[in-house]
Amino acid sequence: MADFVLKGHICYSESKNELITRENAYVVCVGGKSKGVFTELPQQYAVLPLKDYSDCLIVPGMIDLHIHAPQYAFRGMCMDLELMDWLNCYTFPEEAKYMALEYAERAYAIFVNALKASATTRAVVFATRHRPATELLMKLMEESGLASYVGKVNMDREAAEVLVEESAAVSASETVQWIEAVKEKYTNTKPILTPRFIPCCSDTLMEHLRQIQMAYGLPVQSHLSESPGEIDFVHFLRPDNAFYGEAYNDYDLFGKNEDNQTDVKTVMAHCVWSTDEEIDLMRKNGVFVAHCPASNMNLSSGIAPIRKYLDLGMNIGLGTDVAGGHSDSIFRAITDAIQVSKMYWRYVDQTMKPITFPEAFYMATLGGGAFFGAVGSFAEGYAFDAVVLDDTALVHPQELSVSERLERAVYLGLDTHGIRAKYVNGEKIIF
Amino acid sequence: MADFVLKGHICYSESKNELITRENAYVVCVGGKSKGVFTELPQQYAVLPLKDYSDCLIVPGMIDLHIHAPQYAFRGMCMDLELMDWLNCYTFPEEAKYMALEYAERAYAIFVNALKASATTRAVVFATRHRPATELLMKLMEESGLASYVGKVNMDREAAEVLVEESAAVSASETVQWIEAVKEKYTNTKPILTPRFIPCCSDTLMEHLRQIQMAYGLPVQSHLSESPGEIDFVHFLRPDNAFYGEAYNDYDLFGKNEDNQTDVKTVMAHCVWSTDEEIDLMRKNGVFVAHCPASNMNLSSGIAPIRKYLDLGMNIGLGTDVAGGHSDSIFRAITDAIQVSKMYWRYVDQTMKPITFPEAFYMATLGGGAFFGAVGSFAEGYAFDAVVLDDTALVHPQELSVSERLERAVYLGLDTHGIRAKYVNGEKIIF
Repeated sequence: MADFVLKGHICYSESKNELITRENAYVVCVGGKSKGVFTELPQQYAVLPLKDYSDCLIVPGMIDLHIHAPQYAFRGMCMDLELMDWLNCYTFPEEAKYMALEYAERAYAIFVNALKASATTRAVVFATRHRPATELLMKLMEESGLASYVGKVNMDREAAEVLVEESAAVSASETVQWIEAVKEKYTNTKPILTPRFIPCCSDTLMEHLRQIQMAYGLPVQSHLSESPGEIDFVHFLRPDNAFYGEAYNDYDLFGKNEDNQTDVKTVMAHCVWSTDEEIDLMRKNGVFVAHCPASNMNLSSGIAPIRKYLDLGMNIGLGTDVAGGHSDSIFRAITDAIQVSKMYWRYVDQTMKPITFPEAFYMATLGGGAFFGAVGSFAEGYAFDAVVLDDTALVHPQELSVSERLERAVYLGLDTHGIRAKYVNGEKIIF
Repeated sequence: MADFVLKGHICYSESKNELITRENAYVVCVGGKSKGVFTELPQQYAVLPLKDYSDCLIVPGMIDLHIHAPQYAFRGMCMDLELMDWLNCYTFPEEAKYMALEYAERAYAIFVNALKASATTRAVVFATRHRPATELLMKLMEESGLASYVGKVNMDREAAEVLVEESAAVSASETVQWIEAVKEKYTNTKPILTPRFIPCCSDTLMEHLRQIQMAYGLPVQSHLSESPGEIDFVHFLRPDNAFYGEAYNDYDLFGKNEDNQTDVKTVMAHCVWSTDEEIDLMRKNGVFVAHCPASNMNLSSGIAPIRKYLDLGMNIGLGTDVAGGHSDSIFRAITDAIQVSKMYWRYVDQTMKPITFPEAFYMATLGGGAFFGAVGSFAEGYAFDAVVLDDTALVHPQELSVSERLERAVYLGLDTHGIRAKYVNGEKIIF
């Protein structure tokens, strides 16, 4: 792996409150990791090849904590139902198609190409319940150069017969086969346990997944407290749980469980309607929240109390949740997060100040990046994931500061046509 | 003017409830107006030149009922304040720059080029209070081929000294000079009376504007009930008015006033917090509502009750409200309108069903188009404004219907890079 230096206007976070911008600065990559950002290039790096992206903006790669690869095909359509009906009417029938590897190959190639061309460098991805298609997706993801966790979905109840797995035992055995096949196969693409959500996972299946998690030490992703109808159904299915998240916690699939001395890296998408008890457990267990504002609007779910989560110091990042979210752009998720937080302030709780641009940028990079380890910043020691943005097409009549240019680039969606280069772990994957 | 026929997948509204899609159909333009949409081309049009946009989508041009040309320069920045502070901190200082014609020339060229490249064919535009810069903007708009109403702003109080006009009399006399200069100068670019909003317009100025309106018969644009702080201020300034809109109505600048036998075509931006009395007067007077959902989120204003306005049969269209809104895309406004209506349903009033895609598309075309006359549809007799969309870059693995492709094109913002041609009044203005 080659070491190098990039020059440009460098923007990144070291904490949730501050957005650092360094004009005409240098960021050094050694062994796939950042050596830090410098306004004068230190002598010891002067020998490294330097790529001068003069007047471009250089930002950390965006982290998508929640995206459904098989739903990419119908993004931007079917936006007229709430979650449970939307799943049954549109999503489950589409996901059932991934039984056919030929369809999966066509569809996943489109998804992976799009993700590669976006500002996203790392993603936590739902596949479908189909093992062969999931393995194919992981192969394509690895070839793209992106970094990801990809999950074969587990679902043994409450879905269309064509999609639901035959039994908890079959779901578990397919999962073990899948893990065995992929667990050490790739550098950048890793498996993640993926119970779809409590409505689709029987207690027996959840117990299997607890055992599988213990055996393989995999992280976990799922959905939590997204929509009132979903939450009511979980209460019906598991009346003894005080709150939805407890159903995951009962199987040690909810972060760090001190009682059982388990520690499972976990990301839960949405958390729109989490009760104080649920929030408290998420915080205590270090569960990551994947905030997906566009999806929460499109499916009429609601607005997650992100100000609260940030102020509690919880782990939080952004997700596009394609295809509940219609766009795969994390730039868009940044601005959506700010916008919905303003509506939350206006209509729900005026003690909860709107999210600022630096806070949303933090969530999109360092906040979500923490799920992958030291990721999402240019501070020394972080994985070298970078996106180079050329904003010359966004002409303007006045002088603009670097931070103004960044904010504008994000609001105006420069990620769709303004990416000049992208690096993951120090490898240039475009262009 | 040449007559012609276009062929493609034609999508348009004839009413607010139905989106018509005609696959491989023909739309005929004679004398700048539509002769209608046909699945088989009638014999009498067979002699006309035919442009085959096979497999492209053809939609009516988008109507932007509310956009501030001088604010385009700082769109996507400065999104951290509510309306009144945002005006004072960011907007008024920027608008003051348009005193210098050199700055206006540079900035307005950028604005007009962008609008020309967008899916918008017609716009109702705020300039600044500066007469020379406003005349320049109108010249550029006319040269672009777009159709528009453009207003020199009136504001004689409550703004920075550098921007506010010296007196009501000066504001009025500048306005008359401006109208005299432009009223018959252009084919597609017309003046519109533009009191900024009640906080910035003294009673004396409003009385002048009433007289000017009567003398010249111009339409009117302004802002109404956008933000709670603004509304409180209006109550303070005009304590005798029962509601904000009455302040415009007192000067016969609020649609059709039966008592005074006046009929002034009027568009009011926002109407987020309109009371029942205000809504009733708007409906009775035929005032157009310019719904600007992105701006209403960005400035933390709130969510306008659009379901109510639609169900009351009120005149309503969409506005981008750049730079309260950060994007000049009416496609984006369509999806924003749908999204915020879902949050309104969720948090404000569950009897108000979310806006559907056909309804939002109607507002963006026929709804707003009515402000310009027979505009916004391909029904016979409508002005021939059309946008041709090439969605081949949006690859997909499955079969899609034309209406699915349209919804996807709008949600995914195909207007930024997928416009193949654009026509206004039967003239091709791109490409």
